[in-house]
Amino acid sequence: MIVNMFGDASEEQINHIVARIKECGYQAHVIRGEERTVIGIVGKSDRHRSELEALSSAPGVEEIVKISHPFKLAARSCRPEGTVLDLGKGVTIGGREVVVAAGPCAVESAEQIADIAAKVAKAGAKLLRGGAFKPRSSPYSFQGLGEEGLKLMRDAADKNGLLVVSEVMDPSQIEIMMPYVDVMQVGARNMQNYHLLRGLGEIDKPVLLKRGMSATIEELLLSAEYIMSGGNYKVILCERGIRTFETYLRNTMDIAAIPVIKSLSHLPVVADPSHGTGRRDKVAPMARAAVAAGADGLIIEVHPDPERALSDGVQSLYPDQFTQLMKEIRLIAQAVDREIA
Amino acid sequence: MIVNMFGDASEEQINHIVARIKECGYQAHVIRGEERTVIGIVGKSDRHRSELEALSSAPGVEEIVKISHPFKLAARSCRPEGTVLDLGKGVTIGGREVVVAAGPCAVESAEQIADIAAKVAKAGAKLLRGGAFKPRSSPYSFQGLGEEGLKLMRDAADKNGLLVVSEVMDPSQIEIMMPYVDVMQVGARNMQNYHLLRGLGEIDKPVLLKRGMSATIEELLLSAEYIMSGGNYKVILCERGIRTFETYLRNTMDIAAIPVIKSLSHLPVVADPSHGTGRRDKVAPMARAAVAAGADGLIIEVHPDPERALSDGVQSLYPDQFTQLMKEIRLIAQAVDREIA
Amino acid sequence: MIVNMFGDASEEQINHIVARIKECGYQAHVIRGEERTVIGIVGKSDRHRSELEALSSAPGVEEIVKISHPFKLAARSCRPEGTVLDLGKGVTIGGREVVVAAGPCAVESAEQIADIAAKVAKAGAKLLRGGAFKPRSSPYSFQGLGEEGLKLMRDAADKNGLLVVSEVMDPSQIEIMMPYVDVMQVGARNMQNYHLLRGLGEIDKPVLLKRGMSATIEELLLSAEYIMSGGNYKVILCERGIRTFETYLRNTMDIAAIPVIKSLSHLPVVADPSHGTGRRDKVAPMARAAVAAGADGLIIEVHPDPERALSDGVQSLYPDQFTQLMKEIRLIAQAVDREIA
Amino acid sequence: MIVNMFGDASEEQINHIVARIKECGYQAHVIRGEERTVIGIVGKSDRHRSELEALSSAPGVEEIVKISHPFKLAARSCRPEGTVLDLGKGVTIGGREVVVAAGPCAVESAEQIADIAAKVAKAGAKLLRGGAFKPRSSPYSFQGLGEEGLKLMRDAADKNGLLVVSEVMDPSQIEIMMPYVDVMQVGARNMQNYHLLRGLGEIDKPVLLKRGMSATIEELLLSAEYIMSGGNYKVILCERGIRTFETYLRNTMDIAAIPVIKSLSHLPVVADPSHGTGRRDKVAPMARAAVAAGADGLIIEVHPDPERALSDGVQSLYPDQFTQLMKEIRLIAQAVDREIA
Repeated sequence: MIVNMFGDASEEQINHIVARIKECGYQAHVIRGEERTVIGIVGKSDRHRSELEALSSAPGVEEIVKISHPFKLAARSCRPEGTVLDLGKGVTIGGREVVVAAGPCAVESAEQIADIAAKVAKAGAKLLRGGAFKPRSSPYSFQGLGEEGLKLMRDAADKNGLLVVSEVMDPSQIEIMMPYVDVMQVGARNMQNYHLLRGLGEIDKPVLLKRGMSATIEELLLSAEYIMSGGNYKVILCERGIRTFETYLRNTMDIAAIPVIKSLSHLPVVADPSHGTGRRDKVAPMARAAVAAGADGLIIEVHPDPERALSDGVQSLYPDQFTQLMKEIRLIAQAVDREIA
Repeated sequence: MIVNMFGDASEEQINHIVARIKECGYQAHVIRGEERTVIGIVGKSDRHRSELEALSSAPGVEEIVKISHPFKLAARSCRPEGTVLDLGKGVTIGGREVVVAAGPCAVESAEQIADIAAKVAKAGAKLLRGGAFKPRSSPYSFQGLGEEGLKLMRDAADKNGLLVVSEVMDPSQIEIMMPYVDVMQVGARNMQNYHLLRGLGEIDKPVLLKRGMSATIEELLLSAEYIMSGGNYKVILCERGIRTFETYLRNTMDIAAIPVIKSLSHLPVVADPSHGTGRRDKVAPMARAAVAAGADGLIIEVHPDPERALSDGVQSLYPDQFTQLMKEIRLIAQAVDREIA
Repeated sequence: MIVNMFGDASEEQINHIVARIKECGYQAHVIRGEERTVIGIVGKSDRHRSELEALSSAPGVEEIVKISHPFKLAARSCRPEGTVLDLGKGVTIGGREVVVAAGPCAVESAEQIADIAAKVAKAGAKLLRGGAFKPRSSPYSFQGLGEEGLKLMRDAADKNGLLVVSEVMDPSQIEIMMPYVDVMQVGARNMQNYHLLRGLGEIDKPVLLKRGMSATIEELLLSAEYIMSGGNYKVILCERGIRTFETYLRNTMDIAAIPVIKSLSHLPVVADPSHGTGRRDKVAPMARAAVAAGADGLIIEVHPDPERALSDGVQSLYPDQFTQLMKEIRLIAQAVDREIA
Repeated sequence: MIVNMFGDASEEQINHIVARIKECGYQAHVIRGEERTVIGIVGKSDRHRSELEALSSAPGVEEIVKISHPFKLAARSCRPEGTVLDLGKGVTIGGREVVVAAGPCAVESAEQIADIAAKVAKAGAKLLRGGAFKPRSSPYSFQGLGEEGLKLMRDAADKNGLLVVSEVMDPSQIEIMMPYVDVMQVGARNMQNYHLLRGLGEIDKPVLLKRGMSATIEELLLSAEYIMSGGNYKVILCERGIRTFETYLRNTMDIAAIPVIKSLSHLPVVADPSHGTGRRDKVAPMARAAVAAGADGLIIEVHPDPERALSDGVQSLYPDQFTQLMKEIRLIAQAVDREIA
């Protein structure tokens, strides 16, 4: 950290800061410039970090500038070659292959999920996505089929050689979900639900962690750190659109977050153009853009009859559109020296 | 809802939409303008609402415009005269009085909380705030004293005639907290933690619900609706700053949200200028602004030794500053025909 | 427009709105729902539009919802097949080819611009970009070479078969620039400088209009409308990143704006990944993403010695990196059935 | 500036940065921490600042952190006691008095402006506001009466002892406006129109500079610096709402910007709650909040018949509402030890 003093800070104020830094177990390097003094803080102790931060409102201090990132296990420097995760059934993510998960927003019935599983598998998806527990911003909306939905999804996936990814909303659901899913998904609204993150840190199963809709990239990596600090290093990050002033689409997809995260972290990164755009006709261009920018995978909503879907119908692809999209991203993957099996 | 068709939508497309609206149990009113056709949807059934929304990507449709708000119990029309909540010990919120909660970010020790409780009570606070369970974006930061912290806070409050408000982070903590706190606080990061909201809907205790850092006012009211739809109508809303491009302060306090919420809802609204600004020297002007704009209360961080606080020291007031602030907002309260006892 | 009345609006209030609508020369369609009344406004007259908008704060009115877009000449419906612009020297934009403009942020010297022009031409660029008049947020920064810079750029372009695109900042510069440039660029900060837009509406030369850093897509199209309403239909739109809460990169590139604009408008759309990211190592992935999402062109900063550039060195590619980037986007262009000659 | 090196930066990379810093005429202070090396740059030369900034993408560099603010004349340190500007007719701003400007969005007719001038003067306004040149986002909207409007406004103001503030949109209008107005207003869309700012730097008349809708506070102060660096130190800053994800109101008023600007700069600060909210019924609470937070003045839209206003009717107060508002803010001003004469 660097303490940036005001131009008119007094000697006494500077000395006070230096003394406090030492009191906290760090060294202080004072650099006196022509316009102002800055004080570099050196040392590894993390114990008194919050006290150091509190100095930012001490007299004479304009601001504290943080230099090092607060995440460690998730940092690229921790595994410079990148992480390749084995998801099961021979599917790996983070390597050469671009992996696609597809399926409905919510599991609605045995017929619906069986139908769509067969179709997305045929088109080249490797995972079946679908919600059994649904986070809905209105208490009056459809809330999901629960465990019954998980069973239906597991069956449909197994019959088509697919893996299962589904959202967990609360620590109490982890145990119920374990037998049915291959990848636990954490939704955007729960990215900073620390109880849930801690719970997922204690299991041995990959976690797909979605970026909160107003979370910075650093905060996303800190949430990954929560899971990893518990011992579960199998984390996949997901860009799914952020909230900005532009409201033509439901979210603004931060495609640049993909290469940024690849620089900052060794973890695989996927993109969700369905939630990222919220409109069916914009899913394909953004899926292509994500792969072109280096995404390790995609997660796409597909529904056999979107107009009658119980949720997210507006952004779900028709099965034919998904098949067409897979053709397009296969070409894009080749252009960036990746592949879709 | 209104369906806004593209200018070049065909008769067939218009007819399809009309048919789907009827299929869902609603009436369709077609208005043919010179440039385009719009279709009004009339009816009360909420059953097929998501299917109606899915029409927004049907051929020929430009967008679906929602007309009515999705919250009902929280709406002003539900109780036009406004809600006045009895918090206990003769303290009410939502009426003429402006109620102030004050205390440290986190309970750190018996001495700390006893010291600060005496000081804030003397200055005129009616509630003692303080965290026992702390949500921290880094897994390596101080996480709170847990139940021991609750006990210390209860003792300190009782000795000074104060009520207790403290944050609940997970449904599993509700039972532990019930004997110790008078108001359950839901933090900004948990505003859409629906399991937690449902849990709080089943208890009989006031809930202070903080606005998520990128939540719209409508989403805040929908989260209140989650709690109320469970039977607990004792909800207090809290503006605590939103995330914008302006980063000089930690958040941008949306002071206008206060009168907007007062128009849309009957629930009391308080402001948190400590988190809203993140800097000690900006807390007082924003506290004054909030009261001037019509806030029913304030929640303020005060610490006996902010430079040594284990968290949020940078934004905590010194006790003397809090006493001064209380004097200032008493005058502001009078100017807007309110009072601070 | 649709007038959305409050649920408790009185008959008198509804009648007042209907009367005002008729007074303004429009027809009113009243739809009475179970929860509220909405009033559709039909008619083509634009004369009293602002008076209609003012109704949104009349008693009993919750909001006015605008249905039709305020841009007309820029709308897709005006030319459904899309616009293909001839820029000169056989270069067209908006058709099958993806057109690339490249060069330094600012023209600094004859050697610099000659050097870079030869290199970008060889790599496949069709336009030379470079600033002679520079908008700088600090009055103490380098402000450009002025007309001398334009001459140097014209010479360098002509020797390498390139077209010239350069920024115009004020109506007074239009005449000076006309002989030197093939495309007039309007910078993000001037997107709503209406005097400048009107001036450009009166010339017969293509205009590259950059999106303001907090402009909605609709506002961008309205600014295009300003130019087109003056008679100059040769407008190219440019996505260059918007301002959001995410500050790791200088801007958040709104890649989805590319397909959205293609739906709403017939005008060609290009992307500027240099300003969109502000970091050299993120330019290539975002250039690829833009082409994958359907961009008609790119504008890229390249400098012979970025570390010594007088401006924007941090985001300028080295010439070798640009040559490599051209190879990559050629492959992406093919994958989306486009080409780079 | 501080250069923050990556943890794995090589000695060679560090040495390269140190050499470049010296080459640019600055001193380099290398601080080697346990996790990474940071390099402080000391020196006053501004010549090579952009080259230093370009180092942020040199190999081994994670980022460049700017320490000092780029504005100087506008900085508080330049005049620690604050600036009190004499506007004429005995009105000063920046001192004890809170100064109010009021009037219609646009001058529409002699009757309209005479009527409203008399009413706002009687209620206590000191300046008459009104537009003669209107920036409109649509080319099809009412564009103002031009010089005729200025004459009407001057007459109306003089008859009522008021000063005149009106918006200048282009350098070419400065000369026309000089005889009619007492304060030149720069609108939010022109905050970074550098030609206009330079033009205003050369006159001897106060300038009211509105914050751009997505401008940071630092950028606002840099725009003030543009004017001041030309020799005109008479600048008044204006907070008028920023663009955020919250769209219930037209803008999000950044009330905290008022005390922040007062800390960073010596210039007077006013607030515009009419544009800041865009809704008549929210103007009063936000006007009160601005004064409570320390604003030196307000600028308010008032119209004799808002429902028939040619622009901004939705946010214009009725004259009676303005009179009531003046009573309220007089009380608030007293509560913060200020006054409204």
